[in-house]
Amino acid sequence: MGLYYRMNLIDLLHQIEKGSLSAAQAAKLIDEMYERDLGFARVDIDRHKRCGLPEVIYSPGKTGQQIAKIMSAMAQSGQNVLATRATPEQYKIVKKIHRKASYNKLARTITLIKSRLPKTHAQVGIVCAGTSDIPVAEEAAVTAEFMGARVERIYDAGVAGLHRIFKHLPTLRESHALVVVAGMEGALPSVVGGLIDRPIIAVPTSVGYGTTLKGFAPLLAMLNSCVPGITVVNIDNGFSAGVAAAMIARTEVRS
Amino acid sequence: MGLYYRMNLIDLLHQIEKGSLSAAQAAKLIDEMYERDLGFARVDIDRHKRCGLPEVIYSPGKTGQQIAKIMSAMAQSGQNVLATRATPEQYKIVKKIHRKASYNKLARTITLIKSRLPKTHAQVGIVCAGTSDIPVAEEAAVTAEFMGARVERIYDAGVAGLHRIFKHLPTLRESHALVVVAGMEGALPSVVGGLIDRPIIAVPTSVGYGTTLKGFAPLLAMLNSCVPGITVVNIDNGFSAGVAAAMIARTEVRS
Amino acid sequence: MGLYYRMNLIDLLHQIEKGSLSAAQAAKLIDEMYERDLGFARVDIDRHKRCGLPEVIYSPGKTGQQIAKIMSAMAQSGQNVLATRATPEQYKIVKKIHRKASYNKLARTITLIKSRLPKTHAQVGIVCAGTSDIPVAEEAAVTAEFMGARVERIYDAGVAGLHRIFKHLPTLRESHALVVVAGMEGALPSVVGGLIDRPIIAVPTSVGYGTTLKGFAPLLAMLNSCVPGITVVNIDNGFSAGVAAAMIARTEVRS
Amino acid sequence: MGLYYRMNLIDLLHQIEKGSLSAAQAAKLIDEMYERDLGFARVDIDRHKRCGLPEVIYSPGKTGQQIAKIMSAMAQSGQNVLATRATPEQYKIVKKIHRKASYNKLARTITLIKSRLPKTHAQVGIVCAGTSDIPVAEEAAVTAEFMGARVERIYDAGVAGLHRIFKHLPTLRESHALVVVAGMEGALPSVVGGLIDRPIIAVPTSVGYGTTLKGFAPLLAMLNSCVPGITVVNIDNGFSAGVAAAMIARTEVRS
Amino acid sequence: MGLYYRMNLIDLLHQIEKGSLSAAQAAKLIDEMYERDLGFARVDIDRHKRCGLPEVIYSPGKTGQQIAKIMSAMAQSGQNVLATRATPEQYKIVKKIHRKASYNKLARTITLIKSRLPKTHAQVGIVCAGTSDIPVAEEAAVTAEFMGARVERIYDAGVAGLHRIFKHLPTLRESHALVVVAGMEGALPSVVGGLIDRPIIAVPTSVGYGTTLKGFAPLLAMLNSCVPGITVVNIDNGFSAGVAAAMIARTEVRS
Amino acid sequence: MGLYYRMNLIDLLHQIEKGSLSAAQAAKLIDEMYERDLGFARVDIDRHKRCGLPEVIYSPGKTGQQIAKIMSAMAQSGQNVLATRATPEQYKIVKKIHRKASYNKLARTITLIKSRLPKTHAQVGIVCAGTSDIPVAEEAAVTAEFMGARVERIYDAGVAGLHRIFKHLPTLRESHALVVVAGMEGALPSVVGGLIDRPIIAVPTSVGYGTTLKGFAPLLAMLNSCVPGITVVNIDNGFSAGVAAAMIARTEVRS
Amino acid sequence: MGLYYRMNLIDLLHQIEKGSLSAAQAAKLIDEMYERDLGFARVDIDRHKRCGLPEVIYSPGKTGQQIAKIMSAMAQSGQNVLATRATPEQYKIVKKIHRKASYNKLARTITLIKSRLPKTHAQVGIVCAGTSDIPVAEEAAVTAEFMGARVERIYDAGVAGLHRIFKHLPTLRESHALVVVAGMEGALPSVVGGLIDRPIIAVPTSVGYGTTLKGFAPLLAMLNSCVPGITVVNIDNGFSAGVAAAMIARTEVRS
Amino acid sequence: MGLYYRMNLIDLLHQIEKGSLSAAQAAKLIDEMYERDLGFARVDIDRHKRCGLPEVIYSPGKTGQQIAKIMSAMAQSGQNVLATRATPEQYKIVKKIHRKASYNKLARTITLIKSRLPKTHAQVGIVCAGTSDIPVAEEAAVTAEFMGARVERIYDAGVAGLHRIFKHLPTLRESHALVVVAGMEGALPSVVGGLIDRPIIAVPTSVGYGTTLKGFAPLLAMLNSCVPGITVVNIDNGFSAGVAAAMIARTEVRS
Repeated sequence: MGLYYRMNLIDLLHQIEKGSLSAAQAAKLIDEMYERDLGFARVDIDRHKRCGLPEVIYSPGKTGQQIAKIMSAMAQSGQNVLATRATPEQYKIVKKIHRKASYNKLARTITLIKSRLPKTHAQVGIVCAGTSDIPVAEEAAVTAEFMGARVERIYDAGVAGLHRIFKHLPTLRESHALVVVAGMEGALPSVVGGLIDRPIIAVPTSVGYGTTLKGFAPLLAMLNSCVPGITVVNIDNGFSAGVAAAMIARTEVRS
Repeated sequence: MGLYYRMNLIDLLHQIEKGSLSAAQAAKLIDEMYERDLGFARVDIDRHKRCGLPEVIYSPGKTGQQIAKIMSAMAQSGQNVLATRATPEQYKIVKKIHRKASYNKLARTITLIKSRLPKTHAQVGIVCAGTSDIPVAEEAAVTAEFMGARVERIYDAGVAGLHRIFKHLPTLRESHALVVVAGMEGALPSVVGGLIDRPIIAVPTSVGYGTTLKGFAPLLAMLNSCVPGITVVNIDNGFSAGVAAAMIARTEVRS
Repeated sequence: MGLYYRMNLIDLLHQIEKGSLSAAQAAKLIDEMYERDLGFARVDIDRHKRCGLPEVIYSPGKTGQQIAKIMSAMAQSGQNVLATRATPEQYKIVKKIHRKASYNKLARTITLIKSRLPKTHAQVGIVCAGTSDIPVAEEAAVTAEFMGARVERIYDAGVAGLHRIFKHLPTLRESHALVVVAGMEGALPSVVGGLIDRPIIAVPTSVGYGTTLKGFAPLLAMLNSCVPGITVVNIDNGFSAGVAAAMIARTEVRS
Repeated sequence: MGLYYRMNLIDLLHQIEKGSLSAAQAAKLIDEMYERDLGFARVDIDRHKRCGLPEVIYSPGKTGQQIAKIMSAMAQSGQNVLATRATPEQYKIVKKIHRKASYNKLARTITLIKSRLPKTHAQVGIVCAGTSDIPVAEEAAVTAEFMGARVERIYDAGVAGLHRIFKHLPTLRESHALVVVAGMEGALPSVVGGLIDRPIIAVPTSVGYGTTLKGFAPLLAMLNSCVPGITVVNIDNGFSAGVAAAMIARTEVRS
Repeated sequence: MGLYYRMNLIDLLHQIEKGSLSAAQAAKLIDEMYERDLGFARVDIDRHKRCGLPEVIYSPGKTGQQIAKIMSAMAQSGQNVLATRATPEQYKIVKKIHRKASYNKLARTITLIKSRLPKTHAQVGIVCAGTSDIPVAEEAAVTAEFMGARVERIYDAGVAGLHRIFKHLPTLRESHALVVVAGMEGALPSVVGGLIDRPIIAVPTSVGYGTTLKGFAPLLAMLNSCVPGITVVNIDNGFSAGVAAAMIARTEVRS
Repeated sequence: MGLYYRMNLIDLLHQIEKGSLSAAQAAKLIDEMYERDLGFARVDIDRHKRCGLPEVIYSPGKTGQQIAKIMSAMAQSGQNVLATRATPEQYKIVKKIHRKASYNKLARTITLIKSRLPKTHAQVGIVCAGTSDIPVAEEAAVTAEFMGARVERIYDAGVAGLHRIFKHLPTLRESHALVVVAGMEGALPSVVGGLIDRPIIAVPTSVGYGTTLKGFAPLLAMLNSCVPGITVVNIDNGFSAGVAAAMIARTEVRS
Repeated sequence: MGLYYRMNLIDLLHQIEKGSLSAAQAAKLIDEMYERDLGFARVDIDRHKRCGLPEVIYSPGKTGQQIAKIMSAMAQSGQNVLATRATPEQYKIVKKIHRKASYNKLARTITLIKSRLPKTHAQVGIVCAGTSDIPVAEEAAVTAEFMGARVERIYDAGVAGLHRIFKHLPTLRESHALVVVAGMEGALPSVVGGLIDRPIIAVPTSVGYGTTLKGFAPLLAMLNSCVPGITVVNIDNGFSAGVAAAMIARTEVRS
Repeated sequence: MGLYYRMNLIDLLHQIEKGSLSAAQAAKLIDEMYERDLGFARVDIDRHKRCGLPEVIYSPGKTGQQIAKIMSAMAQSGQNVLATRATPEQYKIVKKIHRKASYNKLARTITLIKSRLPKTHAQVGIVCAGTSDIPVAEEAAVTAEFMGARVERIYDAGVAGLHRIFKHLPTLRESHALVVVAGMEGALPSVVGGLIDRPIIAVPTSVGYGTTLKGFAPLLAMLNSCVPGITVVNIDNGFSAGVAAAMIARTEVRS
C-alpha cells in the first residue's frame, strides 16, 4: 500500500481518537479510500488526466447519437474525446451536436478538444509499407497526437524499394519510439529494426492477397522478427500502437 | 500427337500394306509407340539423360543397405546418383559398397558420379538468412550443381544487417536464377527481390521460435511478398528449389 | 559495386581535379549516383523499361478517378500501363479519360499501350483446370503478354479428363515456362509436371466446395507435389505467376 | 421391429396364457429379447460372424500380453482375430502363446485364423502412390482379405509417372471397389477416379515434407476432388478403408 | 489393354494386310481407338449412358442463360440433365426455354429428363440430423434418384432423440447403401454405423454455431468415427454423396 | 461488501472511540480485514476447508522431492493433499517420505489423507467411451472423490454399441452431475445428454487417429453438441471436470 | 431398468396369467412400454414439463410465419415457448398471430407464456465483460428465467477495471451458478473464478479485433483457465449457458 | 542524409579541388563513407557499445566448443557476452575455457562480463503468473540486467489469486517498463494493465494443457487485451521482451 494512503488512514483514525470524527463517518471514508488504494476508481479519474488519454470511444456498433451522447458527458467534465473507427455517417450526426468535433477521414477518428492537449517533447515516428496501410498508420498517429506526442509520418515505404526508408533514417533516429505498420509479408519492422536503435512497435494489417489470412501472415512475421526487442500489437490495431508509442515516448521526455 | 510419331505410324502401316510386316508384329510395335506418345516411358528414359537429374533417392525411412542397392542399380547403367536427407550413418554403410560416393555433411547428401556432370554456363545464386538455414541452402546448392549449374553461395545475409546483402549485389545480378532461403519472418526474398531483376525461388525453413509454426510463418510471408514474380517451394525443400533454379538457369544458357 | 558506377565516380572526381566541376556540384551528383548504386532509383526507371513491367496498378480500394490519374502520370512519360483486378465500373471511368485503354473482362485488367510492347520469342504456356479458374489464368496471360511473351492458353483441362491435357502436350513442350492454374484438389501441376520438362509455376485458386479453405487445399497440394522443381505463388495470384513466367521465358530467349 | 422378434414375443406371451411359463420367467426373457431388438447385443454376436469382421484389436497402448489374452478369449469361441498397428515386439510375445498367429511386417498386423475365412468373389483393388504409402495400403489389403475379399495390389503408381497407372487399368476395372492411398499432394484418387467407374475410397497418408501437415494436405485434396463420388477415410486409416471396400465389394457379389 | 481393343486392332491391321483398308485410313482409326483405350473419350460418351450420370452442371457463377444453353446441347443428344445448387432465379430463366425442366426447391436442383431414367433395384437410405441439413440431404437424394436408385428419406433424426433413428432401423437395413448427413457435432453417422451393417457415406454440413468452423467440426468427427468403414465426403457435398451411394447400391443390384 | 465485515469495521472503530484500541493498532487490523474483504487471503484459507479442495499439485516438471516437500508443508497444517499427473517414479520418492500416500496408477494421482474427507450425499456419474479414455475419466473420479462426492464409474461405453449406455441409464439418472469423457468423434456427451436430464460436463481426450488433432476434433464436437446445456472442459482435463462435477453435485445436496 | 417399469411389466404379465389380458394386447403394450424405458418418447413429453424447458425454436433460417406456426402448435398444448436469435422482423409477424408474445430486443428472443413459469429459489448470476457482450449475456438471462431461475445481471465489468467486479462479489456469492460472458482476451471467468466458489459457466463471444478469430481467442483462454472447475460452452452460445446454469441452480434448490 | 556525412563529403571534395587528395584516394573514402551512411557497418560497431547489447549467442544447435569460440572472439575486443537457451552441458564446456563465465540455471543463460555493465537508473519490473513461467521471466530479467537495467522480480502472481499482484502494485508503479509473462489463459497482462500506467510487454509461454496450442492461446489473449497499449513478443521469447523493456526504460532515464 502506498505511503500516501497509509498517512491518510492514520490521520483519520487519530481524528476518531480525538473525537473529531464519528466511527460511522470514518467507516464510510475508509471504504472509499481503500477502493482507491486498489487503484480502480482513481484510475478512472486521475489516470486519464495524467495520461492525456481520458477516454476513447470505439464506434462500431454504436449509433451516431450514442457517440454524441457519450461525448457530451465527457466534454461536460472538460475532457478531450477521441472516437475511433468512426464512419462519415456517424461523424455527420456527431457534428450536428458537437460543432467543434473534427473528423480525420483517413484515420476514421473523431476528436473533440475541450482542454489543451498536453505539451510534450515526445516524438513518435510512424512508418507504413503501402498506401493501403495508411488508415491503420493514421489511426496510430492521431492517437499518439491526442496523447501529446509530436508525430513524424513516413508513409508508403515498403521493402520492395528500400531507398524510400533510407532517405528518412535521420528522422526516424530522432524519434523516441517508432510505430511500423505493414501488411502482406510484414517485413518492414525487421528492416527498420536492423537500421535503428529505438523501441519499435509493429502493427500487422489485414491488407493483401489470399494467404495473408486477414493479417495473420504479417503478424506471424513480426512475432518472428530476427531483430530482438520488436514488440507487436493486434492486427489493424493502430490505436493500441499509438497508445504504446506515446506512453514510451512520454516517459523518456518526462524524466 | 507429334509429327515424329505420325510419320512412324504411317511408315509402319505402309510396311503392312507392302507385306514387310505382319499384323501381329505391327500390333506390338504400335502399342509401344503409343505408350511413348503419351510421353511416359520416354520420359523415364530420355528426360533424365537430358536433364542431368537422372534419379534422386529420398533417404529417410530407408536403410543404408537399401540406398546402396538402389545406387548400384543406377550406377550400372552409368547414371549419376544423388541421395538427399542422408544421415552420416547411412553414408557410412553406402561408402563401404560405393567407394567413390561422397558425403556433404551440411547438405546431408550423398553423391556418386559415374558420368561427367553436364557442362553449362548456367549460374545459380543461393542466398540464406541465418546460419541455421545453411543445411537447406546447401541442399539446394548440391542439387543445382548435380544438374550442371555453377553455384554462387551467399550465406548468413539476413535482413537485420542489410549491408551483408548489398555487398553481394553484383554477384547476384550475374546469376540466371536465385534461390533465397530464410526462416523466422522470411523477409529476405522480398528484400532481394526489390533489388534484383532475376527469377527468385524462395525457400522457407522451419528454423525459429514458437510461432514460426515449423516454417509456416516464413512460408506465408514469402507467398505474400510485395515483390511480384517471386515463387515459393515447400518448407525446408532445398532440393526442389535447386531443381527449379537449375532448370531455369539452364534454359537461359541453352538457347 | 558495379564497374559502371566505379568508372563514373573516378571520372567525376577527375573532373574536380581538373576544375571542370565544383565540389558542390559533384556532391549532388555523387548523392544521386550512389542512390542508384543501391539499385533503387534506377530500378524505378531503368528496370521497368528493360522488363516490360513498367508499373502495375492494383485496383481494389481505388476509385476509377484515382486509377485514371495514375495512368495519366505514367502515360505522360511514355510508359505502358497495366491495372489488375479492375471492375467494369472502374474501367468505365478510366475509359472516359484514356480513350485507348482496353479492358479484359475475364482477366479484370485494364491496359493502356503507349510504346510498343517489347518483342521477344519467349513463349509461356498457361493451363487451367476448370472454367472457374479462367479469370486467374487470364490475369497471368495478360500480364505475361504485357511483358512481351507470347502466350499459349490451354483452358478447362482438369485431371478428371486427362485426355484434354494429352492433346496439348506438344504445345506445352514448346513453351519456355508454364503457368498451371487449379483450384479444388490442385492436382494439375503434378500431372503436367510428370509429363513435361519445363519450369512450372503453380497457381492455386480459391474455387471450390467448403474444405478448399479458400484455396489453401490446392496451395498445400501444390507445395507438396511429388514432382520436384514445381514452384508456387499465392492463391489467385495470376499476376505474380505471369511476371515469373515471363521473366523465366525471357531469360531463355535473351541469351 | 423385425418379424422374427415379433413372432418370438407373441409365442412367449402365449406360453404364459397357456401356463407353460411364469410371469417372472417371461419378464427376464423379454428384457433380453428387447435388448436384442435394439440390435446391440445381437450386433456383438451375429454381425461379426456374418461380416467376417469378428473383432479387431487396436494394438498401440497395449502390452503383448494383453493382446495375447484378448486373442485367447476370442479364439476360444472359434473366431478369427486381427490386430492392427502391432509392433514386432508385440508380435514376438503373442507368438509364444498363439503359435499359429502370423505377422505382416509391412501392414503391422497380427492375424490368427481359427475358422476358415469367408469365401467371396469380391475383388478389391488397392493402389498406392509411393513406397512410403505401402504400410497403409497393406493394412487396407490385409483387412479386406480378413473380411473375405480378394485383393489386387498396385503399388508405387504415383501421378508423376502416369503410365504406371495406365498399365493396370484393366485390373482396376475388374475390381468391385478400389482403395487409393496417397500422401503429399494426394492427387492419385482424382486421376484414378477420372479413368475408372468404380466406388473409390481415398486414404490420405502422413507421408511427406513440412506442409503436408501430417496428412492434412492430401486429406483436403481428396475431399476436394473434382471427380464426384470419391469418399475419404481418416489419415493413415488403411484399416477403415479396407473395411469399407470389402463391405462394398461383398454386397455386390452377394446379391 | 483390354481384350476388346486388342481384337479390334488385330482386325484392323488384318484389313490392311488384306488391302481392304488403306494405311492412311487405318492411321486415323487407330488414333481414335487408342484415345479410347485410355478411357477418356469413351468415358465422355459411354460411361454416362452406363452410369445414369451423363453430365452435371454446377450452377453457381453461371447465368440462367448459360445453364439453359448447356442443357440444350445435352438434351439434343438425348441425355438427361442435372443442375445442382441452382437458384429459383436461374430456374425461372431455364424454365422459359426448357418447359419440361423441373425444380426441387429444397435440393436446389434442376432436372430435365429426356430418356427414361435407368431402372435398378438399388435402394439408398438417406438420413439427416436436423431440419437445416435437409437441403444437403435432398441434393444427395435427387442425385441418387437421377442415377436410378430408389431413395428412402429419414429426416430430422438427430442423436438428441435416438428413438427417431430406432423407429427406422428396418428401412435402413433394407438399403444397399446409406448417406448420413449431419452438422454440429456430426455424431449421427457413428450412431447409425453402430446399429447397421451397410456401407455408410457421411456428409458433414456447415450448419451450426461458431465453432463448427463452417462444417469442419462435424467433418473431423466423422473422419474420427469409432465405427470402422464409414467414409466421408466434403462439407455440404450432397451431390458427391449421392453419386457414391448410387454407385455402390447399383453394383450390388447389377451383379 | 458483506455484512460481516461491515460489522467488524464499525465495531473496531467504536473501540478506538472508546479508547480500547490505538489508531496504530487499528490501522494494521483494518489492512488485514480489507484484504480479506477482497476475498483473496481468505480464499486461500477458508475456501479450501469448505470445498474439500485444499490444494492440488500439478506434478509434471517437478521432482519427486519437490512434490514430497509441498506435501509435507500442507500435511503439517492438517490438509489432505492431491497430486495429479504423477509418474510412478515421482510416487516412489514421495512414498519414502509420506508412508500413507497412495497412488492411483490409472488416474496418475497421489493422495495423502490427513483429515477425514468431507461427507456428502453428492453422487457424480462418470462415463467414458473407450478404454483409452480411462486415465482421464479416472482422474476426474479421484478428484471428485477427493472433494467428497460418491462416484459411479461407467467405462467403455462408446456410441458404437449404444446398449452399453442404456444398461446404465438408471444409475446415471441417480447422479447429481455427470462427467462424460470421449476421444475420437466425441459423440458420447450428445447421446447421454439426449437421454438424461442432468448437468453434463464433457471432457474431450487426445485419443485417436491423425485428424483428431490431439483432441480438437472431440472438443469441437462437444462444443457444438445439439443438446443444450452441455458444458466442456479442456482436452484431457479430467481434474477440472472432477472439480466442476463435485462442486455442482455438492450444491445440490448441501441445500 | 427403472423399478417403475419392472413393476408394470410383472403386473402386465400377471394379467395374462390371470387371463384379464390377451397375449396380442399385451404385446402392443410391452412395445410401447419398452420404448419409453429407453427414455425417448417420454423425454419428449415429461421432460419438458419437469424442466421448464418445453421446446426452444432456433429462429435463423425460418420465416416469421413458420415460427408463429410452431408456436401455435406448442401453445395449444399449454406449453410456454421460447424462440432464440429472432429478428425484429420475425417478431413483427409472430406478434400479429400471438398477441401475448413479447420480444427482448437485446437478447433477440421471443417468449410466449401460456402456463406460469416454474417457481424456484434458484439464483443465477450473469456477468459480462463489455457492452458488446450484452446480447449473449441477455440470451443466457432470458433462457435461465424461462427455466424458472431468478437472474442477477452484472454487465460491463471487464478486467480492465477490476473494481467493477469487486463491488458485486456479495451478489455473485449468493448465486447458485454463474454465467460469465467475455470476448477479446476472455480473462473474466478466471478472475471471477479466483474470487468465488461457485460453478461457473464461461461463454466466449465473437466480439473484438482481428485475431480474436471470431471468438476462438477467448474460447481458448477459457478452456485454459488456471482456475479449476470452470466449464465452457460454444462461442456466443448464451442459450446453452442459460440452460446449464438454470439446471445446476435448480438442482440445488430442489433437493 | 545526416548533416555529419554531408559535411564530410563537401570537405573531402574540397580537398580534391585543393589538390590535397587524389581522385583515386577520394573514391575509396567515399565508398566507405556512404556505406556508413546506410548505417550498416557502423551499426555493427557503434550500436552495440551504445546499447549495452553487444552481441547475443543463441545456443541451440551449437556445440559448447562453438559457443566458447565465439565468446573468445568477442571477449578479446573487450565486449560482454550473453548466450541464451544454453544447456548445463554447453556451460560445462564453456566454463573450462572461460573461467569467469557464469550460468543462470533458471534463465538458461551464460554471461561473460569483460567491461563493467552500463550504469543506468532504469528499472524494469518482471511479473510472471506461475512457477512454470519462471524460466522465460528469468531470461527476460537476465537480458535486461545485461543491458544495464535494474530488475524487480515478482513471480508466481497469477490471476487466480489477485491479492498476490495487489501487494506489489507500488513496486510495479516505480518501474519504467514492465514485462508480464503468462501461459494458459494469458490474462495477467490485462489485469496488470488495468492497474498500472506503464509500458507493458506481454510474453506468452508454452506452458499448459492441450488447447494452449503451445502458447498460441495466451498469445491470442494478449493480442486481444481490452487494455490499450499492451504490446506482445513471441511465445517464450523472454530475451526479446528483456531487450524491449530495457530499451524503453533506458530511454526514460537517459533523457
